[in-house]
Amino acid sequence: MPRLIIDTDPGVDDAFALALAARSPEVDLLAVTTVFGNVGLAATTHNALRVLALCGREDVPVAVGAARPLVHPQPREATAAHGADGLSGRAATLPARGRGVEPVDAVTLMAQVLQASPEPVTLVPIGPLTNIALLLAAHPGVKPKIDRLVIMGGGLSGGNCTAAAEFNLWCDPEAARRVLVVEDLPTVLVPIDLTYRCAVDNHWLARLAATGPIGAALDSLTGVYRAHYRESMGFDGTVIHDAVAVAEAIRPGILATTRLPVAVETAFGPARGSVIADRRLTSFADESGARPIDVALDTDLDALRAFILSRLS
Amino acid sequence: MPRLIIDTDPGVDDAFALALAARSPEVDLLAVTTVFGNVGLAATTHNALRVLALCGREDVPVAVGAARPLVHPQPREATAAHGADGLSGRAATLPARGRGVEPVDAVTLMAQVLQASPEPVTLVPIGPLTNIALLLAAHPGVKPKIDRLVIMGGGLSGGNCTAAAEFNLWCDPEAARRVLVVEDLPTVLVPIDLTYRCAVDNHWLARLAATGPIGAALDSLTGVYRAHYRESMGFDGTVIHDAVAVAEAIRPGILATTRLPVAVETAFGPARGSVIADRRLTSFADESGARPIDVALDTDLDALRAFILSRLS
Amino acid sequence: MPRLIIDTDPGVDDAFALALAARSPEVDLLAVTTVFGNVGLAATTHNALRVLALCGREDVPVAVGAARPLVHPQPREATAAHGADGLSGRAATLPARGRGVEPVDAVTLMAQVLQASPEPVTLVPIGPLTNIALLLAAHPGVKPKIDRLVIMGGGLSGGNCTAAAEFNLWCDPEAARRVLVVEDLPTVLVPIDLTYRCAVDNHWLARLAATGPIGAALDSLTGVYRAHYRESMGFDGTVIHDAVAVAEAIRPGILATTRLPVAVETAFGPARGSVIADRRLTSFADESGARPIDVALDTDLDALRAFILSRLS
Amino acid sequence: MPRLIIDTDPGVDDAFALALAARSPEVDLLAVTTVFGNVGLAATTHNALRVLALCGREDVPVAVGAARPLVHPQPREATAAHGADGLSGRAATLPARGRGVEPVDAVTLMAQVLQASPEPVTLVPIGPLTNIALLLAAHPGVKPKIDRLVIMGGGLSGGNCTAAAEFNLWCDPEAARRVLVVEDLPTVLVPIDLTYRCAVDNHWLARLAATGPIGAALDSLTGVYRAHYRESMGFDGTVIHDAVAVAEAIRPGILATTRLPVAVETAFGPARGSVIADRRLTSFADESGARPIDVALDTDLDALRAFILSRLS
Repeated sequence: MPRLIIDTDPGVDDAFALALAARSPEVDLLAVTTVFGNVGLAATTHNALRVLALCGREDVPVAVGAARPLVHPQPREATAAHGADGLSGRAATLPARGRGVEPVDAVTLMAQVLQASPEPVTLVPIGPLTNIALLLAAHPGVKPKIDRLVIMGGGLSGGNCTAAAEFNLWCDPEAARRVLVVEDLPTVLVPIDLTYRCAVDNHWLARLAATGPIGAALDSLTGVYRAHYRESMGFDGTVIHDAVAVAEAIRPGILATTRLPVAVETAFGPARGSVIADRRLTSFADESGARPIDVALDTDLDALRAFILSRLS
Repeated sequence: MPRLIIDTDPGVDDAFALALAARSPEVDLLAVTTVFGNVGLAATTHNALRVLALCGREDVPVAVGAARPLVHPQPREATAAHGADGLSGRAATLPARGRGVEPVDAVTLMAQVLQASPEPVTLVPIGPLTNIALLLAAHPGVKPKIDRLVIMGGGLSGGNCTAAAEFNLWCDPEAARRVLVVEDLPTVLVPIDLTYRCAVDNHWLARLAATGPIGAALDSLTGVYRAHYRESMGFDGTVIHDAVAVAEAIRPGILATTRLPVAVETAFGPARGSVIADRRLTSFADESGARPIDVALDTDLDALRAFILSRLS
Repeated sequence: MPRLIIDTDPGVDDAFALALAARSPEVDLLAVTTVFGNVGLAATTHNALRVLALCGREDVPVAVGAARPLVHPQPREATAAHGADGLSGRAATLPARGRGVEPVDAVTLMAQVLQASPEPVTLVPIGPLTNIALLLAAHPGVKPKIDRLVIMGGGLSGGNCTAAAEFNLWCDPEAARRVLVVEDLPTVLVPIDLTYRCAVDNHWLARLAATGPIGAALDSLTGVYRAHYRESMGFDGTVIHDAVAVAEAIRPGILATTRLPVAVETAFGPARGSVIADRRLTSFADESGARPIDVALDTDLDALRAFILSRLS
Repeated sequence: MPRLIIDTDPGVDDAFALALAARSPEVDLLAVTTVFGNVGLAATTHNALRVLALCGREDVPVAVGAARPLVHPQPREATAAHGADGLSGRAATLPARGRGVEPVDAVTLMAQVLQASPEPVTLVPIGPLTNIALLLAAHPGVKPKIDRLVIMGGGLSGGNCTAAAEFNLWCDPEAARRVLVVEDLPTVLVPIDLTYRCAVDNHWLARLAATGPIGAALDSLTGVYRAHYRESMGFDGTVIHDAVAVAEAIRPGILATTRLPVAVETAFGPARGSVIADRRLTSFADESGARPIDVALDTDLDALRAFILSRLS
């Protein structure tokens, strides 16, 4: 039975991802922690609580995490894609949750949950990696309780928020380097190279909306987001990046991974925030600062979409 | 009554600084936390415990902190100045402490001590700022319990471990930027511009050695360190950088400070790890990324040396 | 009739590229200039002279260019791929040229040739871009005489000499930024994404060797180079990067190009020297520091190989 | 007899410096070249011509140099200090020169003048180092004709246009690194640490104005500039940075120099464009990327001011 902690900055696709975990009966969703990112921390926390309420999950503890990156300022939020409230202007339409946030911060909640867990837990960061970097750096004693990280982030052949960088990593490249390169936990990275190919079309969304009130509510959050992808990709549908990562966390192996050495660019140039995966067969010379991790580059697309649809219904 | 937490990487001058706090009757030394730096984490922890034992301080809890910087690797330890064991090869001659380290990590101990403290506490980081950055970023709720930071680090007119950078900041420039520039706590920075001028000569050391077993033991730790300064500065004596900062923490105002906007260079060039203090009367234009803090640039040198000597005796 | 100046650092594939231009009857090869790169400047100059001698081209002036990058040191030569002499240890077997180098430097020769040319000239840089950056920055008056640049360099989906960077651009990222991003001349960039797909196999090389003494001599230069690709790519054959660019310079349009905004990473991180092409349909926000140029991403592979083979025969 | 080429971006203090050279009978002023900097290239060229006309120097050839830095954009001009026209709004009041600019670019003129000179020449760059970097990198054959560089630029203990960087070096840090660190010519750097101490007060300016029409004209250019220093330094007078360097070029040894290893920060952080001089007695470890040059840190201040005044009269 997968035991998960999801760290998130909802965000439309984060909402789908949260719902996917919250509605998967075989998952033990131990905690949800929030982080700045797509929108500000107050909004991402608000949205996380409401999505859990939508899914009837009063039981899951939620704690508030980092309001800013580790070292340098966040240049920009993603309101163009997600709307000013992070949910296409529809956040207020979701039900409020009776249970608010925990009285401890996100890193403390994660540490407590991990320490209390009799079995290893999968961390699923689907926002900027600030909270995760802080947890692992401040409290390395919890690492034996983490079986792996399944991270949504990065783009091997270009980014979405800059030409080189994907939004989550670009928001906090220093945290990303800490987690991906410095730490040594088993790690699956789910980059946009794959998540774009897992895009769902309007037919899929219509089927989701028809499954009932939760599906309809999720579909209703996609207005601004869908318009963004229509404009930016010429594609009428939605890319549910984070849900792809959560699918892997729930069902290990649903994504096919390749072990590649990765580095993260933290310098202030056009490549800042990009993940550099070494896809060469051999290297000319010793390349410092790269760690081999498992990069998810393939899946059975239709099966994945069907799996997510069935769980959200 | 000053309530202190000292975060340290002993190191010879750290040993003097720890002893200064440990032996000051008006100080409530709430905790000591250790960090990599002058030597590796195991050695700095070992040394912190032994210096406290030398001072008869079984009561002070010690916890182990970061073994490496936040984001990038530490390029070099300072064994050339402090010896391979951090104490001029004499660490093993100090008494062992009965009480070992706490079962929690340094960040947790600091958070617990702060939360439990009825009054605000002064944090005194005298090593790389990794633990402090982690504490403030992961657990911002403790900040109301911190009255100020008194930090030994930086050099306004050049460094000691590179031409531009002082050792503590250079070890973890990202952590330094987090603490000095991103956070907003009242902060006193004690740079080498001042600490070098507070150097003590061999006469001072001889007087210290003559005061008794603790003074003699401290003096005995300075062999490699003194040789290093003789070679690097042409000066026969010792520079007890960290003790200058602890003096300020114990006796606020013993150092004269100037409020200057500071930035920290984190890029990988010859200025990496340097602190940039804006000493211009006015700025041409808005300079991003600088925060006004209090930089200690002056003191009554003889009075300071006398104060430190009296407390270590 | 294409009028070309080739700037080169031979190198095995440079030798093929030079021979391709030198043996193309419709080309007016106005000058060849040399630059450090695959091997040192003395060796690249030696090799350029000998390849021209092999092709019976005493008439082409050769001038010596930059021995080092514009701003920062070159980290590494490519002797692992090209051999210590740049031509698989076979440089000395090529015929010497009677006419040595011109008494002027490469930038002066280029400027003189351009000023004297009644018609615009195509610059074909197939090594580090140092000489070209210097020419354009020091002598902007020559720009009206340049119809376009056809540059071999860069990798859109990863590099060859680091995980992110192709060798030519990585050797001098500052010069590459100057030429690709700051200048405004019509520019075709031929990246390794395409040149690898234009690889020739051993059958092609055997056919080349059978065409006569020049073909045989060129084939004889590929020993170390072929072994390098066998090891690094698991491919038995040769990648003649620079010849692909020269083919485009000779026969404009033989490569299919896509107009993409490009930037060059000059910061010192894992992406240093990489070209960042913006392949998004639209950008989230204004991206500073990118200039639209024509990137060659496709061609009729068999026709290209046949064209090169016919000319080298 | 000193043979000088002055490379300049006038600028009020550049005007004083040009006049100092132009009015010194023992100087053979071989050429003046212009560069972007304090204001745009058209304005700096205009101003250089007019200052020479003021001094009755139709004989000195002037050529137009770089309009922009080598690699990255210039962030900001210095119009706040020098006025929109570079001469406190008074550029148009200076006499026009009959002889315009040479038909060749600045780098070509410098190369021609150097090649034609029977004796070595002193280069005196008092603006951004772009032209000089291009000359040395593109045409290394001229270096034997250069006896030394006397450069106004840099600040060892902080900058003027940022907290870390002096304006000339900050305008083109890459060119500065090329000239100061990569090249190996004898070099005197005249930093603002010294030039500020050479400031002249209003009494000095009044005496200058009383010496005749040239002195009066120079004084008349200082309105905006003087106001800038009054505001930024609380000092009523003028800092004639560039004239201090020209004084050294005219009378070698008038400034006292110290040999220090210097590096230049080219990374994009708060230290960008700063010069890092290693003032330590010994270095902990080998510091890459620093070259020992002669840094002018002292002079007989009154004698220097008297010398400049006498020449401008």
